[in-house]
Amino acid sequence: MSIVDLIVKKREGTILQKAEIDTLIENYVQGKIPDYQMAALCMAIYFQGMNKREVTDLTMAMVNSGERIDLSSLAGIKVDKHSTGGVADTTTLILSPLVAAAGVSVAKMSGRGLGHTGGTIDKLESIPGLQTTLAREDFIKQVQKIKVAIVGQSGNLVPADKRIYALRDVTGTVPSIPLIASSIMSKKIAAGADKIVLDVKLGSGAFMKSKEKAFELAKTMVAIGEEVGRETVAFITNMNQPLGTAIGNALEVEEALLTLQGKKKGPLRDLCLYLGAAMLMLAKRVKKIEEGKALLKPLLDSGLALEKFAEMIQAQGGNSNVIRDFSLLPQANDQYQVKASTEGFIAAINAETFGLAAMTLGAGRENKDSVIDLSVGIKAHVRPGDKVRKGQPLFTLYYNDPQKLDSALALISHTLQFSSTPFPGEPLIYSFITKKGTQKLNLSF
Amino acid sequence: MSIVDLIVKKREGTILQKAEIDTLIENYVQGKIPDYQMAALCMAIYFQGMNKREVTDLTMAMVNSGERIDLSSLAGIKVDKHSTGGVADTTTLILSPLVAAAGVSVAKMSGRGLGHTGGTIDKLESIPGLQTTLAREDFIKQVQKIKVAIVGQSGNLVPADKRIYALRDVTGTVPSIPLIASSIMSKKIAAGADKIVLDVKLGSGAFMKSKEKAFELAKTMVAIGEEVGRETVAFITNMNQPLGTAIGNALEVEEALLTLQGKKKGPLRDLCLYLGAAMLMLAKRVKKIEEGKALLKPLLDSGLALEKFAEMIQAQGGNSNVIRDFSLLPQANDQYQVKASTEGFIAAINAETFGLAAMTLGAGRENKDSVIDLSVGIKAHVRPGDKVRKGQPLFTLYYNDPQKLDSALALISHTLQFSSTPFPGEPLIYSFITKKGTQKLNLSF
Repeated sequence: MSIVDLIVKKREGTILQKAEIDTLIENYVQGKIPDYQMAALCMAIYFQGMNKREVTDLTMAMVNSGERIDLSSLAGIKVDKHSTGGVADTTTLILSPLVAAAGVSVAKMSGRGLGHTGGTIDKLESIPGLQTTLAREDFIKQVQKIKVAIVGQSGNLVPADKRIYALRDVTGTVPSIPLIASSIMSKKIAAGADKIVLDVKLGSGAFMKSKEKAFELAKTMVAIGEEVGRETVAFITNMNQPLGTAIGNALEVEEALLTLQGKKKGPLRDLCLYLGAAMLMLAKRVKKIEEGKALLKPLLDSGLALEKFAEMIQAQGGNSNVIRDFSLLPQANDQYQVKASTEGFIAAINAETFGLAAMTLGAGRENKDSVIDLSVGIKAHVRPGDKVRKGQPLFTLYYNDPQKLDSALALISHTLQFSSTPFPGEPLIYSFITKKGTQKLNLSF
Repeated sequence: MSIVDLIVKKREGTILQKAEIDTLIENYVQGKIPDYQMAALCMAIYFQGMNKREVTDLTMAMVNSGERIDLSSLAGIKVDKHSTGGVADTTTLILSPLVAAAGVSVAKMSGRGLGHTGGTIDKLESIPGLQTTLAREDFIKQVQKIKVAIVGQSGNLVPADKRIYALRDVTGTVPSIPLIASSIMSKKIAAGADKIVLDVKLGSGAFMKSKEKAFELAKTMVAIGEEVGRETVAFITNMNQPLGTAIGNALEVEEALLTLQGKKKGPLRDLCLYLGAAMLMLAKRVKKIEEGKALLKPLLDSGLALEKFAEMIQAQGGNSNVIRDFSLLPQANDQYQVKASTEGFIAAINAETFGLAAMTLGAGRENKDSVIDLSVGIKAHVRPGDKVRKGQPLFTLYYNDPQKLDSALALISHTLQFSSTPFPGEPLIYSFITKKGTQKLNLSF
């Protein structure tokens, strides 16, 4: 088999065989296939797609390119969660202790991030003393003991994905459903997940901007899960608006803590309840989503989930007083409040400019070498649908550098869309997809 | 402008601007754009195509990547010819002296070849003493003096094409009409052509196997010529059958000489008359194709074209006695005749296996480092439509290595297709395309 023949086959829309895909990934990771051939193949896949069998074979070939985490010593079914990336989305910090508080093991490996704000690991590092680099053994032991740990990725997991992702990034082949699906699923499988809950974001602030593409991605990943015996379910959720009201690393930890205290309601909490309920369902802790929600709500409202988080912070060397004393988190030197210059209804908060404004303040990485300022960020005081009067606070910007504040203010001024008439708001969850197809959910928040 | 943005634009079917294409080619040739990005872009072009303006800009950006031959010191309009590559096609050797004999300058740069047999330059080197490497000045002087010279490519012509072609070859992006058209046209323009006659081969032995693709390629190149003020016309011709009856370097020179002697009739001669007539028409020597044919036929039949070839051979240091004494050409040690084992009508000669059999004997290059055996090759004694009786000679194979003969015989046995009923034959010329569209030709041979 020559790689040119493979490229031509895919270019012509022919189905690739498992042995061909295996050889391809193996040789690419070993450096035997040059980047220019893989780039041409990725573009051919962009145009011709892959069927269920091909994308499953691709996923498993990528998994097999590196190390796999063995979670078999943990009791029960291990369920992982993945989000395709939204703005002001700090679900992992809330979900992990919440699901653990319900008795299900959460052995979570998270990443840092390129984007508007840091990844889960960056956010966690806002908590004084907390370690995110644990030896594999200690990671497993902690989950055995207290049911939850969140650590940074370690080991040589899915090297094929690292190489292919870097290549796609510079060759215009990022938005290919089979390439996205295999990238996500290979990482979850290599990280030891028995089952997977996906949060596929749809909207202006998300990677997937069309309903069709979001559904296609969700269904492809659910199908891969089915093919490899790792049950996968997917929510398609709204990312036209930021999910939470805070963006920035320490500010998002604060919002997560407020949610875990049961004090903060809204879409972030609601989504955590649904994602968590799905995790409990896959872990066979409950039979139905509604049952899972009913189990999780009191864990939030009673503070038990918060206590679980405190336990995790302590186990990982952090100062657990932070759960009630937010002044222990990194603080920005200054604040600036943006007030409404007019009255009306909030029709939309543009997730993208909201995120970019936070990045401008220093909350995120523009490139791999950027240093994140954990203390800066933005709180939104309004949500779509709210009625505001003139002079009412809209945003507070937490900043250290006045010049960066000016740039962020220029962006934030484009973030809100006003309407003179009441605005009905948009649904939070569009759809729930399992191996049986799209499921009806009786949404109640 | 980032190259990734350009790739994404083309991937989405957006038209690229001239400045974008110029920057792209310039930076690629300078090594500032890596192969993997160009590979992804070539694949995107394969799927999305290019419009007339884009492919013209691409062609000229490629021309501008290197040196250009200045033929302005030659009198009259300089017309070049290009064939997309067929089997047993030695038109350049016949056409060049023929058109020169009609008083039109032919300053021809030809190549060596990868394929069944050598390129024009390889074939010419069968003639004892003949030099194909001339100083640029001497090349021009020779054409000024005797109207014709055929030399190997020299100088740094279209380096962009060399790099892109090599990349396309290993990334499954060869059969893209805009990439093929810009590759061909850039080389002709850089070589100094004022006007261009194209022979686009169509059929099993050609690169273009579908009528639609052959027409699309021809029309694209005619349009590029129109856009850049270099009138271009294209014939679409039959390559289901070999054009001539001989394949192999010295054997093809012999066939060219027989044709120039006016002794050998058939498709090779007929096509030379049409291609030559079009060259005369573009050079404003005649008004119509038919007029050109009427002018050229006597030049063949009288031996004047042959005399012009002898003049050229002499001017380039070769032994011009070769024009009547074929024993001066390299001779293979042995011959083997294949005879008909049955009687019937020849329905087809498979151009591809005929060519592969010759390559197996050593007539062509399998890769850049292969050494060509100029003496070996095959003569076919029958043509499609012929009636043959049992025992009649079908092919003679000229060989030096008995092992290679065995391999060639295995191939040649698949070359003929017999029919029990008379076979009407196929047209030689399917179409003639000018800037005004497809032209009706009153074909007569």
